Amino acid sequence: MATIFTKIIEGEIPCHKVAETEDHMAFLDVNPIAEGHTLVVPKQEVDYFFDLPDALMHSTMGFARTIARAIDTSLEPLRTGVIVQGLEVPHAHVHLVPLYETHQVMALGHNVSVSDDRMKELASLISREVQL
Amino acid sequence: MATIFTKIIEGEIPCHKVAETEDHMAFLDVNPIAEGHTLVVPKQEVDYFFDLPDALMHSTMGFARTIARAIDTSLEPLRTGVIVQGLEVPHAHVHLVPLYETHQVMALGHNVSVSDDRMKELASLISREVQL
Repeated sequence: MATIFTKIIEGEIPCHKVAETEDHMAFLDVNPIAEGHTLVVPKQEVDYFFDLPDALMHSTMGFARTIARAIDTSLEPLRTGVIVQGLEVPHAHVHLVPLYETHQVMALGHNVSVSDDRMKELASLISREVQL
Repeated sequence: MATIFTKIIEGEIPCHKVAETEDHMAFLDVNPIAEGHTLVVPKQEVDYFFDLPDALMHSTMGFARTIARAIDTSLEPLRTGVIVQGLEVPHAHVHLVPLYETHQVMALGHNVSVSDDRMKELASLISREVQL
């Protein structure tokens, strides 16, 4: 059965898309722990991040860097952090979390409230700065 | 001034070393958030993870994968998670966090108590399984 991320990638489930390449997609996390919290997902379904084939792990991190730079330029956090946890969805993904404060709690589940309009705006702001 | 990680790498500050290559070192975090919580550090001092030169970012993730596999084999967590946050030490590093439970809190600062003897044992257990 397709994972929820594959359904998002295939357009069956809507998302706030940030960027897409042949092998990857980036979209806002629907349960953000910070404004601009973005998921980077390789289109190939592999459960565990460290089981990604070498080239795909590297291209995923390279794409994550591209998106992190776009977040840094558009939203101007102190920097963008990374979480790979992935016990909920069996489809490897990288969380990019803008860190706006030195002591910001960076933990999945520690959600912030972001309106749908603001999500739309955030995706557009980041997307505009993506340099593929 | 050398960062605390450079001092550890150069042996000025002791650590529970897990593995070392020409360009990287892995050692237990002294403030573990789980048993076996390991830091992977490129020897080159670069503040922001996403500013690492391409080849070094990829080799850092490749080395992190090697260490994660050793953690998975030796300590048998469900899997090993990743955190890159790095607002405390201006020297890019990757946290590898063994996840023993589905709903384990994975957040820096959410520390667990591990005795020095157990730290020694954990470093040895992981180290033995590292396949460079």
